[in-house]
Amino acid sequence: MFESAEIGHKTSKSDYDEAVPALRAELLDAQFELLERKGFSVVVLINGIDGAGKGETVNLLNEWMDPRHIEAWAFDAPTAEESERPHMWRFWRALPPKGKIGVLFGNWYTTPINERVAKQIKESELDQHLDEVNRFESMLVRENVLLIKFWFHLSKKGQKKRLESLENDPKTRWRVTDADWHFYTLYDRYREVAEHALRRTSTGEAPWLIVDGSDPRFRALFVGRTLLGALRKRLELTGQNWVQRQTAPPLPPALDQRNFLNTLELDQPLGKSDYNELLEALQGRLALLTRDPAFTTRSLILVFEGSDAAGKGGAIRRMTAAMDVRRYRVIPIGAPTDEELAKPYLWRFWRQLPRWGKVVIFDRSWYGRVLVERVEGFCSEADWMRAYAEINDFEDELVDAGAVVVKFWLAISKDEQLARFQAREQEPHKRFKITDEDWRNREKWDDYERAVCDMIDRTSTEISPWTVVEANNKYYSRIKVLRTVCERLEAAFGR
Amino acid sequence: MFESAEIGHKTSKSDYDEAVPALRAELLDAQFELLERKGFSVVVLINGIDGAGKGETVNLLNEWMDPRHIEAWAFDAPTAEESERPHMWRFWRALPPKGKIGVLFGNWYTTPINERVAKQIKESELDQHLDEVNRFESMLVRENVLLIKFWFHLSKKGQKKRLESLENDPKTRWRVTDADWHFYTLYDRYREVAEHALRRTSTGEAPWLIVDGSDPRFRALFVGRTLLGALRKRLELTGQNWVQRQTAPPLPPALDQRNFLNTLELDQPLGKSDYNELLEALQGRLALLTRDPAFTTRSLILVFEGSDAAGKGGAIRRMTAAMDVRRYRVIPIGAPTDEELAKPYLWRFWRQLPRWGKVVIFDRSWYGRVLVERVEGFCSEADWMRAYAEINDFEDELVDAGAVVVKFWLAISKDEQLARFQAREQEPHKRFKITDEDWRNREKWDDYERAVCDMIDRTSTEISPWTVVEANNKYYSRIKVLRTVCERLEAAFGR
Repeated sequence: MFESAEIGHKTSKSDYDEAVPALRAELLDAQFELLERKGFSVVVLINGIDGAGKGETVNLLNEWMDPRHIEAWAFDAPTAEESERPHMWRFWRALPPKGKIGVLFGNWYTTPINERVAKQIKESELDQHLDEVNRFESMLVRENVLLIKFWFHLSKKGQKKRLESLENDPKTRWRVTDADWHFYTLYDRYREVAEHALRRTSTGEAPWLIVDGSDPRFRALFVGRTLLGALRKRLELTGQNWVQRQTAPPLPPALDQRNFLNTLELDQPLGKSDYNELLEALQGRLALLTRDPAFTTRSLILVFEGSDAAGKGGAIRRMTAAMDVRRYRVIPIGAPTDEELAKPYLWRFWRQLPRWGKVVIFDRSWYGRVLVERVEGFCSEADWMRAYAEINDFEDELVDAGAVVVKFWLAISKDEQLARFQAREQEPHKRFKITDEDWRNREKWDDYERAVCDMIDRTSTEISPWTVVEANNKYYSRIKVLRTVCERLEAAFGR
Repeated sequence: MFESAEIGHKTSKSDYDEAVPALRAELLDAQFELLERKGFSVVVLINGIDGAGKGETVNLLNEWMDPRHIEAWAFDAPTAEESERPHMWRFWRALPPKGKIGVLFGNWYTTPINERVAKQIKESELDQHLDEVNRFESMLVRENVLLIKFWFHLSKKGQKKRLESLENDPKTRWRVTDADWHFYTLYDRYREVAEHALRRTSTGEAPWLIVDGSDPRFRALFVGRTLLGALRKRLELTGQNWVQRQTAPPLPPALDQRNFLNTLELDQPLGKSDYNELLEALQGRLALLTRDPAFTTRSLILVFEGSDAAGKGGAIRRMTAAMDVRRYRVIPIGAPTDEELAKPYLWRFWRQLPRWGKVVIFDRSWYGRVLVERVEGFCSEADWMRAYAEINDFEDELVDAGAVVVKFWLAISKDEQLARFQAREQEPHKRFKITDEDWRNREKWDDYERAVCDMIDRTSTEISPWTVVEANNKYYSRIKVLRTVCERLEAAFGR
């Protein structure tokens, strides 16, 4: 969930100074058009980790835009007036009218998350709150509210660095209290609860947007541009035959061209002889694990996604070589059949689910919905936006039923892909593996890269994380895949 | 929730025999068109109380339509195959392809409801299941499934009568087992859990349809016609620029012209001197209750709805006469102001909510959304269909915050209304109370009657029931209102 927000985005002062005047002018324009047309209102939720720049960003928005038409609200503990009414009452009243923007700083997410972190409520009670929130937000969206939800994030390391640097400066030392350090000790738990809450409430119509809070200039531009993009899109749609409920703001592209994939070190060292040794050991370990008595009440579902020529097939073969053929099936996913098209898009995967003691390996998977279908326009934005939550729900059900779900993204560089394509064209027995479609997909490299980052951010969850495999070196890649599967199985068996 | 299903609908044999051939022909036509166009699939859920005719109705549908394109599924306890996969797996696989109809008899509602009745799970766990169901159904609707949910109902008396009559006939005696009588003893609990589950899962896009199961002919025609209406509507929409998610089947009108309102005995006896005596006693009781120490942590919210000239104002005045003017406010609800129109439709009510120790009386209310706005077309069908669930959520929040919510529908007959209108026109000091709009509304009597019945069925819940007041006799009506308020307050105070 927080993958993209932890790669350390940065914006230089000169880039920032250059970008701000135009952004301010465009934000003011959009704000004015919103006010003129009065077709909808805008609610911006500001949540996240303390110290990640929530307050500063709200102040900046107020400075950049016309403050007469932005209402910022901060909510502390309920007053007596408030506590004698429904707990949502203070938020209900803070909703802006059509034409205006409301910024809610501390809102309906704050108390449930904090209470769960402090273990004052159970997980099922948290889920009840979140369900209520989902129903409420769904109503807002239908009542012409453009809902934009920002979560300000800092990595644990980033949080520590921030506190230490404040303490080291005599001018800011007073800002760091014991409460801050106490909160720091709760970081892991807070992150876990937040991840759960964000996953349950990131819907197609009101998805969460995670803000990397580590660099003040980056986060300011990120929030400003995202707000602008969402406003612009909705203003355009309002003019047309606008379909209610398809109001997700566009997911913003990375501003500094850095993303989760292109900051990976794709070339990892591993020589052939080390590889052979590790391969044998890991295959033996996997063979034993899939024959383990503990596996009789678990199933294993492997998902392989990756760029063309990233080595999915090779990695899968190294896996199946270790398993009894009666135990596993490999399901290659291509274009859907007519029968599959006549059912919900998940049906083709539902039908293939393994029972206990069995392994199913999907060579491409349900993630096609948010990859190829998104990039090629085979489904609408509303369809792929809702798919993130639907896929998370689906994987929840798998895990609840005892499945171990391991998802791999095999990442290679653009150069490495080119080299592999060319090698395939030259080797007669591999020529069938390279088609015109592969070359066409390659032209959409950047679109795919963006779709992959969004996918990992939105579907790497505490119960079903993605494993991204640096795959320029096939040896390294195959070993990482095998080792991950063994480790996940061992964890599931409680070893 | 079950109000309309307990008034004892009946269809005579001759009416039935006359209606069936045309209905069958139309159902076959619609089924054929569905098959030809393959734009969507139909999932019919059959749930409800045993003995209310679920099985018979499914058999009949199969008989009436082309059974090659209907797939009926019954689900018992999960097999080993099934229990090693997600608990939804067997339902996922049963979904029909586009162009076909699937009838699911025993489905994703059965286990959660039964487990909650047997107290094997807690209410918060039931709610988690229901949330999951809502998310799943919402996905189905977006994946081109027309979802029709039937709940077969029998009153407790009806259930008992049915078991006794089966026992009394030597030919059917064998059909009644101890399990049936055991189930009968659980009737109240089952009804309570079912009501909760139906309320949480009756959404704008997939509302529950309650079937009065007491008369076999009536329920067969009801289900057949509802299915036909839903199919026809969706087939029409599929041709047009169809908006996903606005797929609620039309709520069916009563087939036998009987409804919850027109079967009430509106003339209730109460003479003037009895009235005066009761009035004084009840006003005294109410005065004490609103000054009771227990009221310092409760608030009271009264909702008055009713036909024009039904006596809302008079009933409200008899109430306020008993209360301290600093404690209550009467909020008359007319056309919304510009300020109110710029916010979600509930905002004008949110702003008026009382704190503890206070009373707010709404003379007309948020139910305008599903009454006047529905009948006059001020909002779309999708808007008023979703409002039932939104209003239930809203009232949930009120009750959670300590409010006692009492809702009155004041019902008068059409003749009585005419008499009152004419009387108002003749009395100079009352002439202002009668306008052209009143006469226009009167022309839409039947539309309003239908809207009121739907409203009561869909928003009379275990936590916030409607009180329908037979109001042809004003004395009786005012006393019933006062008494109900006193009783509800006393219940809230635990007396």
